[in-house]
Amino acid sequence: MKKLINHIDDVLAESLDGFAAAHAGIVSLGAERKFVQRRSLKPGKVALISGGGSGHEPLHAGFVGHGMLDAACPGQVFTSPTPDQMLAAAEAVDGGAGTLFIVKNYSGDMMNFQMAAEMLTSDNATVIVNDDVAVENSTYTTGRRGVAGTLVVEKVVGAAAERGDGLAALKALGDSVNKATASMGVALTSCTVPAAGKPTFQIGDDEMEMGVGIHGEPGRRRVKLGTADEIAGELVGAILKDLSMARGQEVLLFVNGFGGTPTLELYLVVTAALKVLQGSGIKAVRFLTGSYVTSLEMAGCSISVTAVDAPMLALWDAPVHTAALRWGV
Amino acid sequence: MKKLINHIDDVLAESLDGFAAAHAGIVSLGAERKFVQRRSLKPGKVALISGGGSGHEPLHAGFVGHGMLDAACPGQVFTSPTPDQMLAAAEAVDGGAGTLFIVKNYSGDMMNFQMAAEMLTSDNATVIVNDDVAVENSTYTTGRRGVAGTLVVEKVVGAAAERGDGLAALKALGDSVNKATASMGVALTSCTVPAAGKPTFQIGDDEMEMGVGIHGEPGRRRVKLGTADEIAGELVGAILKDLSMARGQEVLLFVNGFGGTPTLELYLVVTAALKVLQGSGIKAVRFLTGSYVTSLEMAGCSISVTAVDAPMLALWDAPVHTAALRWGV
Repeated sequence: MKKLINHIDDVLAESLDGFAAAHAGIVSLGAERKFVQRRSLKPGKVALISGGGSGHEPLHAGFVGHGMLDAACPGQVFTSPTPDQMLAAAEAVDGGAGTLFIVKNYSGDMMNFQMAAEMLTSDNATVIVNDDVAVENSTYTTGRRGVAGTLVVEKVVGAAAERGDGLAALKALGDSVNKATASMGVALTSCTVPAAGKPTFQIGDDEMEMGVGIHGEPGRRRVKLGTADEIAGELVGAILKDLSMARGQEVLLFVNGFGGTPTLELYLVVTAALKVLQGSGIKAVRFLTGSYVTSLEMAGCSISVTAVDAPMLALWDAPVHTAALRWGV
Repeated sequence: MKKLINHIDDVLAESLDGFAAAHAGIVSLGAERKFVQRRSLKPGKVALISGGGSGHEPLHAGFVGHGMLDAACPGQVFTSPTPDQMLAAAEAVDGGAGTLFIVKNYSGDMMNFQMAAEMLTSDNATVIVNDDVAVENSTYTTGRRGVAGTLVVEKVVGAAAERGDGLAALKALGDSVNKATASMGVALTSCTVPAAGKPTFQIGDDEMEMGVGIHGEPGRRRVKLGTADEIAGELVGAILKDLSMARGQEVLLFVNGFGGTPTLELYLVVTAALKVLQGSGIKAVRFLTGSYVTSLEMAGCSISVTAVDAPMLALWDAPVHTAALRWGV
């Protein structure tokens, strides 16, 4: 295992310390590193909290700040954070207007966030993200997995919370963004969880895992490596089938690297995905390209498409100031 | 070779097309894709042009836009762009106040930029970046290599050009930022140039290349894989030796991923680097962490340190709006 680490047990703590030091103007670390919180909280605002296993950086801590999350709870690598972490975060960032949890649909995350929600005495609601169209049910999931579309939910709902929307409206908005978003990924190589010390899965030199999950879970099938055009055809094809949009629909196109794929290739995938979208009369009006929802150093990418209307575009375009997404401020 | 591409010959063109489509508000592609140019040029401003081999994305095209470059000339992967490209770029973005070329110190780049500079009839000057303290002379270099510090030069000089500084002042500023910046990197794995189809170098499962160049060139020595603390100790140690700063000096700390190293590890390296800096009484007052000057999918990182004063900090903090760096706007 070749990683820039000291001791396996200290990976998360030392990474969080570096993150907090590098972004001290935006975030601070909660006691015992239970959560990353927004430094300048806004009283009277609904608190947005997400979290999940580490190894997907910059998700979620990289999206804490103005216009996005108020707190993120990092579990160990590919391991759910505990209810204790969510509770501590919820108490720390409570603005008196309730708490909205944004949870990726994995059994461990769901259970722990639900326990925290039940223990919380103040108003709260939960948006469950399940944008991955690759498979129904999976290694760690009942139903579809929550993957890169989580970023889109966090950005859009975060902007609405920032302008002062209430808890019920934000819950409804989050559900609608999730419904308007579909994603699917492909892996060319595995990743290695530090504590495991060996690759999560074996894959041939000429193979790819089509529909892979963000922990390296199996997807739809193991096939021979295809071209970028073939891959984009299958990924975007599955996405379009799921979203069933009318010709002329405007979308956000999000090409996400899993951590080990260079930016050069990600932009090439943008070109490939655009060909498929254009062939269906779908118009990409916003783009996000980069490694934002990763699987450690896995090579590969996911494509996410979100159907947008003018109000959602305004929220996407609204100012954001986090470690990993920043514009308008 | 596992890459998200179609045909080897089309990698750069298809990637540039995706980049231009995704960032159409900021950049446009020159004829025959010779260069990427800033969409909203500013008359009366000194034009800043950089370029170099592709495979280091987002460098340089990702830094074209308000407050940074006016144009970037992409060569094929790890191959210098041609003088023809620089000339076409210089003519396209000429604002009537002269042109400043920012060139990484590689023999091919130096020769081609020099030829372009000689053919250009308008005023021009060149800043040569050679921040890599690992080795004197190298596979493609006479003298030290230009690596991740190039980003710092482009950002600081770009901000000064944006506020209206003249050609001579910008040339002097660029030289001073280069002198105030030192970098060194380590590779854990090789990268694979698409046209070569096989790894650039072989490296053992328990080895790292200390002082590696951004094309996978040999560094100081091949050693057994160390801990993050040991690596940061050697990299920052060499940097501090080069910069010989007084205790209390303020710096920008830039931890740069080479493309295949996850963000989780890069922030851990921030923690490790801070320990070394603090041990020498050096105070990091600005941070940049991410894969900005890459070597395709090479695993590893570089550390860059720039000694800063108040005027340089103001330029670093000034608004920038490019594909890969954006703040204040």
